[in-house]
Amino acid sequence: MNDLLCVLNLLTWDARTQMPPGGEQTRAQQLATVSALARARALDPAFEQAAQEARGDPAQAVAAAQALEAVQAMRRVPEALTRELALLKSGAQAAWAQARAQSDFAAFAPMLTRMVQLNRELAEALGYGDHPYDALLNLYEPGLTGAALTPLFARLRTHHVALLRRVQAQPAPRTDFLRRHYPAAEQRGLCLSAAQTFGYDLTRGRLDESAHPFEISFTRQDVRITTRIQENFLSGALFGTLHETGHALYEQGVSPDLTRTVLASDLLGLYAVGGSSYGTHESQSRLWENRIGRSQAYWALHYPALQARFPEQLGDVSAAEFHRAVNEVRPSLIRVEADELTYDLHIMLRVELERDLIGGQLEVAGLPEAWNARMKADLGLDVPDDRRGVLQDIHWSSGLFGSFPTYTVGNVMASQFYEAAAQALPDLGAQLGRGDYAPLREWLTGQIYRHGRSLVPHDLLVRATGRGLDPEPYLRYLSGKYEDLYGLN
Amino acid sequence: MNDLLCVLNLLTWDARTQMPPGGEQTRAQQLATVSALARARALDPAFEQAAQEARGDPAQAVAAAQALEAVQAMRRVPEALTRELALLKSGAQAAWAQARAQSDFAAFAPMLTRMVQLNRELAEALGYGDHPYDALLNLYEPGLTGAALTPLFARLRTHHVALLRRVQAQPAPRTDFLRRHYPAAEQRGLCLSAAQTFGYDLTRGRLDESAHPFEISFTRQDVRITTRIQENFLSGALFGTLHETGHALYEQGVSPDLTRTVLASDLLGLYAVGGSSYGTHESQSRLWENRIGRSQAYWALHYPALQARFPEQLGDVSAAEFHRAVNEVRPSLIRVEADELTYDLHIMLRVELERDLIGGQLEVAGLPEAWNARMKADLGLDVPDDRRGVLQDIHWSSGLFGSFPTYTVGNVMASQFYEAAAQALPDLGAQLGRGDYAPLREWLTGQIYRHGRSLVPHDLLVRATGRGLDPEPYLRYLSGKYEDLYGLN
Repeated sequence: MNDLLCVLNLLTWDARTQMPPGGEQTRAQQLATVSALARARALDPAFEQAAQEARGDPAQAVAAAQALEAVQAMRRVPEALTRELALLKSGAQAAWAQARAQSDFAAFAPMLTRMVQLNRELAEALGYGDHPYDALLNLYEPGLTGAALTPLFARLRTHHVALLRRVQAQPAPRTDFLRRHYPAAEQRGLCLSAAQTFGYDLTRGRLDESAHPFEISFTRQDVRITTRIQENFLSGALFGTLHETGHALYEQGVSPDLTRTVLASDLLGLYAVGGSSYGTHESQSRLWENRIGRSQAYWALHYPALQARFPEQLGDVSAAEFHRAVNEVRPSLIRVEADELTYDLHIMLRVELERDLIGGQLEVAGLPEAWNARMKADLGLDVPDDRRGVLQDIHWSSGLFGSFPTYTVGNVMASQFYEAAAQALPDLGAQLGRGDYAPLREWLTGQIYRHGRSLVPHDLLVRATGRGLDPEPYLRYLSGKYEDLYGLN
Repeated sequence: MNDLLCVLNLLTWDARTQMPPGGEQTRAQQLATVSALARARALDPAFEQAAQEARGDPAQAVAAAQALEAVQAMRRVPEALTRELALLKSGAQAAWAQARAQSDFAAFAPMLTRMVQLNRELAEALGYGDHPYDALLNLYEPGLTGAALTPLFARLRTHHVALLRRVQAQPAPRTDFLRRHYPAAEQRGLCLSAAQTFGYDLTRGRLDESAHPFEISFTRQDVRITTRIQENFLSGALFGTLHETGHALYEQGVSPDLTRTVLASDLLGLYAVGGSSYGTHESQSRLWENRIGRSQAYWALHYPALQARFPEQLGDVSAAEFHRAVNEVRPSLIRVEADELTYDLHIMLRVELERDLIGGQLEVAGLPEAWNARMKADLGLDVPDDRRGVLQDIHWSSGLFGSFPTYTVGNVMASQFYEAAAQALPDLGAQLGRGDYAPLREWLTGQIYRHGRSLVPHDLLVRATGRGLDPEPYLRYLSGKYEDLYGLN
């Protein structure tokens, strides 16, 4: 089963990084065939029986329970619904792409309405306690509920909006130099070297380019990342690489004992993955990208090498100026261009809207208005058209409802993990100051990575940090960071 | 089934071109799992029944007959033998690599003895008429027998050895400039452009680098080639690319009607391929590489561009000198370095030895002596050690017995096809002279490529050329070519 999921991952990786355009249709058929085989295998009574038998073996009990839970969830979803969702996805993505190009929400609305309807049906089939959204959220973040998100989001929004207003009262940092010409070959070298500095093992990995950066693995032995290089923008490829490196360190750090097991498999999602959930995965990409890669200590140490690599572009820029530039806060209409502080506001907006769509409190027709009102309230921005508003993300057209919360949950967890690491490693500050990332990486490996999917996110978090989801470390981090950067005190 | 074979091809392509070294073991397991699934599917009674039912439908009769033949052959091979062969392969390849490095045939002999034994058993299981070798040969070249090879080889050997002696009496051409420094990036550009000039469609293909060049496809929509670039040798990457381009044109030219069918599948070999056989495939790689790519007309037209690309390296070299250099005849100990004339002598040596091994007329212990004697007789060379002799090729350690003849059969067919094309296209010479390769490619597509595997090689050959395997066009071509190049008349 895990081999088949690794094959699906390879078919996907190749399609996004190497495949010539002509291969698209036959590749979709290959993916469909292997998915169907993997699904049939999971639903084979022999698979369930093997899992039932393994429950008695303490060494296999967790894997067996996970396998049974996944199989039972798969059984609850009617074959016809699975088929219609798969079919609708390709149609809806095409409709979305066209609607976005023409900024014509009405053209996408019928497909989106059907997609919401099918996801409601999916939620009903999967089952839930309080709210149908919880059933979908659980596909990405097992154990998390919308009810738990409400107070968390309220706390974050109050904090973020207040901090944003304080930041906006200050002068903006200089950032012009990030938009100078940075040749692709040099950027590639920079990205590779930065990933290796964090401990990304290239004997078990590689870096490619793709339109949308991602990390994907075929067992811990082969964990690949991509980035997107723009010659007129330095930060994109570099921080994108650090982000994917965080994901990759997680996958490369999974215990070899879990290789090719259920505990390196997302049976319900039909892909091979070592990490416990989308949120825990995102906590690691954010931790390495933002907490380390955008820190003062990181640039105090690494800026001279960057300047030496790009002497013409950065000759007139100091390390402090560079550090401020890559941490600029600037409210933007577009989520993927958002800075660390405003990003959560983008996410919370989406989560609340999609939860209301699934719950029936919001109709698709009312979506643009609700979107625009929230953007104005939180970010102070007027949305000029739906292309830069409600139509900007691919998620809903791909049937992804319930995955957005994991971005913000990842941010919150990242700071919890970081504070726990700092407590466990009294020399962490000095180690990071001299670029010794091994102690932190090893602590994270011991606490998180090696466990793979054998612990659900909540248990992982409590074992490593002593608490469940707690926004305070994250808020402390953001306040401290921007107070320093913008001289708020 | 075809989707699974395409997946196997992708797993292989990725392993040879992209995969980090750490992925080796888990990749082998993924390959084994998908192979086993494909095999199980072919051996499923439902597959055979579907094929039986399709026999009555004229549109499916050929595919059905091929599927049945393959399935029945698979059934004849005991499961235990298939397993032992697969197991022995990885062991034997490792033993061979070590033995070759140390030039120690005795260290490899026990594994090779077992490999010969298992291939004899395989031949017995598959069944044959005259000679067990025929059963193996048929895996690569359906319908061909050792008995048909004997007179063919006798004719070729007599001709080639005599022509070689005449060539060797002449002064050798200048070739020093091929070994100048040719930067990799420039060679890459050259190779891509040369492949496109022949009509290789990059919207359905791509060029990568690998230790051993190859062509592989995942339906006609995605046909990839590789080359090997050495900065101190120009011919390797360039002619390697033209060779693989010939294979790729074949695959890209298969009729879309055959996509994802049995007629684009080698069920017995468990890989996706559009071409009719190894020999017909090789006829196209040889035709485009040698007949076109090493021709006087090709270099008269394209040499100025090559010279402009490498002005320092080729400034003192004329088109005629370059053409002579890339056609130099020089007996070599190593097959993969052999020129067009001596290549067949290497092949025939191997074919005769492996046929005698399988037939029991030659023991493994006597192999080096037999090898060395044949090298002396045909090529006039003393073999200094087994590394440069009997241990040079990976084939036997990989269990490939019966594939060698297809190289020479491909050469023979290439000239038959070319003469038939020249007859059908009265302007062919002028077209090639001005670099218009479309008419030739389209004729080949109509006669060969589009048929995929729906015609066995003999039928394909007879329909396109009016004759079965006939060495005379090939011998006319070689004599004419070297008489011109070496001024033999």
